[in-house]
Amino acid sequence: MTINIILAGPRGRMGREAVNMVSQESDFKLVACIDRKNGGKEVKDIQGLPPLHVPVYENAEECFEVVKADVFIDLTVPEVGYYHTKLALENNMRPVVGTTGFTDEQLNEVAELSKSKKLGCIIAPNFAVGAVLMMKFSQMAAKYFSDVEIIEKHHDRKLDAPSGTAKKTAELIMQSRDYKKQGHPEEEETIRGARGAEMDGMHIHSVRLPGLVAHQEVIFGSPGQTLSIKHDSLNRESFMDGIKLSVNHVMDMKELAYGMENIL
Amino acid sequence: MTINIILAGPRGRMGREAVNMVSQESDFKLVACIDRKNGGKEVKDIQGLPPLHVPVYENAEECFEVVKADVFIDLTVPEVGYYHTKLALENNMRPVVGTTGFTDEQLNEVAELSKSKKLGCIIAPNFAVGAVLMMKFSQMAAKYFSDVEIIEKHHDRKLDAPSGTAKKTAELIMQSRDYKKQGHPEEEETIRGARGAEMDGMHIHSVRLPGLVAHQEVIFGSPGQTLSIKHDSLNRESFMDGIKLSVNHVMDMKELAYGMENIL
Amino acid sequence: MTINIILAGPRGRMGREAVNMVSQESDFKLVACIDRKNGGKEVKDIQGLPPLHVPVYENAEECFEVVKADVFIDLTVPEVGYYHTKLALENNMRPVVGTTGFTDEQLNEVAELSKSKKLGCIIAPNFAVGAVLMMKFSQMAAKYFSDVEIIEKHHDRKLDAPSGTAKKTAELIMQSRDYKKQGHPEEEETIRGARGAEMDGMHIHSVRLPGLVAHQEVIFGSPGQTLSIKHDSLNRESFMDGIKLSVNHVMDMKELAYGMENIL
Amino acid sequence: MTINIILAGPRGRMGREAVNMVSQESDFKLVACIDRKNGGKEVKDIQGLPPLHVPVYENAEECFEVVKADVFIDLTVPEVGYYHTKLALENNMRPVVGTTGFTDEQLNEVAELSKSKKLGCIIAPNFAVGAVLMMKFSQMAAKYFSDVEIIEKHHDRKLDAPSGTAKKTAELIMQSRDYKKQGHPEEEETIRGARGAEMDGMHIHSVRLPGLVAHQEVIFGSPGQTLSIKHDSLNRESFMDGIKLSVNHVMDMKELAYGMENIL
Repeated sequence: MTINIILAGPRGRMGREAVNMVSQESDFKLVACIDRKNGGKEVKDIQGLPPLHVPVYENAEECFEVVKADVFIDLTVPEVGYYHTKLALENNMRPVVGTTGFTDEQLNEVAELSKSKKLGCIIAPNFAVGAVLMMKFSQMAAKYFSDVEIIEKHHDRKLDAPSGTAKKTAELIMQSRDYKKQGHPEEEETIRGARGAEMDGMHIHSVRLPGLVAHQEVIFGSPGQTLSIKHDSLNRESFMDGIKLSVNHVMDMKELAYGMENIL
Repeated sequence: MTINIILAGPRGRMGREAVNMVSQESDFKLVACIDRKNGGKEVKDIQGLPPLHVPVYENAEECFEVVKADVFIDLTVPEVGYYHTKLALENNMRPVVGTTGFTDEQLNEVAELSKSKKLGCIIAPNFAVGAVLMMKFSQMAAKYFSDVEIIEKHHDRKLDAPSGTAKKTAELIMQSRDYKKQGHPEEEETIRGARGAEMDGMHIHSVRLPGLVAHQEVIFGSPGQTLSIKHDSLNRESFMDGIKLSVNHVMDMKELAYGMENIL
Repeated sequence: MTINIILAGPRGRMGREAVNMVSQESDFKLVACIDRKNGGKEVKDIQGLPPLHVPVYENAEECFEVVKADVFIDLTVPEVGYYHTKLALENNMRPVVGTTGFTDEQLNEVAELSKSKKLGCIIAPNFAVGAVLMMKFSQMAAKYFSDVEIIEKHHDRKLDAPSGTAKKTAELIMQSRDYKKQGHPEEEETIRGARGAEMDGMHIHSVRLPGLVAHQEVIFGSPGQTLSIKHDSLNRESFMDGIKLSVNHVMDMKELAYGMENIL
Repeated sequence: MTINIILAGPRGRMGREAVNMVSQESDFKLVACIDRKNGGKEVKDIQGLPPLHVPVYENAEECFEVVKADVFIDLTVPEVGYYHTKLALENNMRPVVGTTGFTDEQLNEVAELSKSKKLGCIIAPNFAVGAVLMMKFSQMAAKYFSDVEIIEKHHDRKLDAPSGTAKKTAELIMQSRDYKKQGHPEEEETIRGARGAEMDGMHIHSVRLPGLVAHQEVIFGSPGQTLSIKHDSLNRESFMDGIKLSVNHVMDMKELAYGMENIL
């Protein structure tokens, strides 16, 4: 069975790859794009996109009125994404949303709408299946190992440390273990910062070097053994598997899932 | 609540550590040992064991008749272990068995006995929680990644390659994915063996070096990302956490679990 | 002091990056390009190249007659590269050649010419400084560790296993150690290939997965310790540092160096 | 040719292993031990030592007067070690000293005495060949990579962070590169300590977990590539190779070498 798809945000870096992916999957069919430019054109007319005779709309309401689809993929920005998501549900399409930054209120509203329409909806801050599994496994392992440290490594153009993924991983771990002040009770930093950032007694270390992309290793230790879960991300290609999986999965869902960890 | 424990095989390498562990846990109490030597002595009289006034029996029947316990830990050899396990269940104790090598028939018999007595029983070829989680996570990840290779590393006194754990991991992965011939369809080994051992289209590599102990890494790959799950084992201490966990867990069970993966 | 540079092969993947690199280095000045197409044009007229008013020649002889330079970078193919290299030396320029595949005879001829002209010349099969250091350090470590295995990992579109770098590393190690049949003398493969490819008693393992690029780890082991040297390559950018280094270094040389390991 | 050896400190953890190692090497011969207890006994009479008919002296002067040896191994404490080392040189033996903590003045004195006697002498804070090579290679690589971070991992009973080896590595790297403030100029720690300890613009991260022993990885990065040098130490066995190497090497030396890096 073919799944008909409308995609919003086809010119962004993620969007471009997603248009390519959808057009190459035999079970998927791109039936329209929503773009804040290029209304009235076709996908083939937009530089960098594949030569498809697929209409482009600037206005989501118009698009949803004219074209019917099973799934709506949104890769735009939060404000627009929120509006699109609601509109898609109201028009009986299942949203798969890569836009992050929805407020709790907005998420609640989407959740209710999704439930009342009995239509699946996936909002995912991270479509990299490997990263999501790394977090899920870490949360599971934390039940059996009371000690854990996180090492995340990124290119040296990254501004914030620790990374968002590292903090989220730590939060998930916190949900499945009791607080533990790790390391020797009397340990001492002879140079400040050596033991890294502390969250709930566990430690996070941020490495920044040219030649790195995006990597994270979660290391659990107990007497006589360590268990490590590591994700290495090379480029945005890694998100396509997650979008593909979400499109297939959302067809069988009847309510909102926030985060891919809830469908894996 | 204190869990009373009888332990068989206190002089083996695992047994010795287990006696120590049990005697140090505040919720556990060692009430007797079964040893094919030293009947009539106390644990304190056996070299290498802690100074405990705990009786040692050569005969399991006699022991079970005189001493009552909640859990029976067996760290002996298969034939003896099988006999002990049945006897323990019949005497209303819950067995935690580290002995491997039971036949299918023996396992079935124990399973039935356990069920009819409504008593938990755990038989585990591997008590290292980290190794068991590595296998479990690998099986889960295989649903989302069609490509995987296994690298296992051991000291150079190991005779067989690949390791038993590597083969077991591959078998578990096979259960959650379809056959896939990995690598380039036309790939060529210019030196035989370069691509490792093949199981179901996946590849296993066995490294043997002095300075290593027991390590395994399972690497999943898909476009743009890899996910790696690694276990490093240093010594038998790593099994104690698993035995401890099993003793606690078996109290709440009502039938046989074969392999710790079924209780984690 | 500015180093004037002529570059042959500006449209290849390496060439393009090298043109960019040279044009961005403050001490380097691109004074001409040699291309088998585009004679008479300027670099700025060639798609994908930076907007430089630098002349392009189809004929090397003509180029060398008209334009004088300190260093000649060749990123073409072996036959052409060999001819270019000799011509450059005869015209008093120092060649830095990324083209591989010269015959021994050709190498000898270039070596003699370089020596008689007292002009430096670098021919390098691999400009990735990290890969060259990995090989150099491996050769050094092999003097102190009798046991070593190599794990190389590449994307699954690679045809040959083991990789050329792995074989070259093994050859360099062979030069600094005596033959040693590694592993347990009675070790057995229960699945053929588990112990990898064997060279001089050491073992090489080739992993192929989507999501990988080009990686190699050389692991030395002795009782109680292991020493690992690992190189991870992401893309061709990694070669630019090596070309830069070679251009600077060749100015102070008076003869041929084959392989960057001889100038590091 | 057999090398006759006197060893001081046979009952310490290092000493015990060293006595075993010396007694097993076919080219080495243990001719006496110096111990602050057990004078007049033989090695075989001391618990935990092999059954050797080798005399034990409490007094070094007496020992050196009676027994002649080629090499003197000292595994005691600084004050005693310093005194022993001088005395050994004066008695025409070559010292191999694992005792750390000599003052600069003491080192100078030993250096002069060694030179005037034309006798080799090795004082090494670390006999693990792998650790010393890791530091040496790191210093070499720092010439070609301007960015580097160090991750050191130890068991969670370690008190100080970063480790002494990590600091020493950083100091060696500082000798072969110019100061560089690494990471993004505007990077920000959202949790303090995330970016680790800073030395000369490079960053050091200290991981502490049960199940670890002593590990260090030095990671160099440049555009498109990383080079990593890693040492994993399991136990004191790793020092024996270094002592063996030093004993052989000191025979051919004519002055003091401080640190094994100077003989590798």
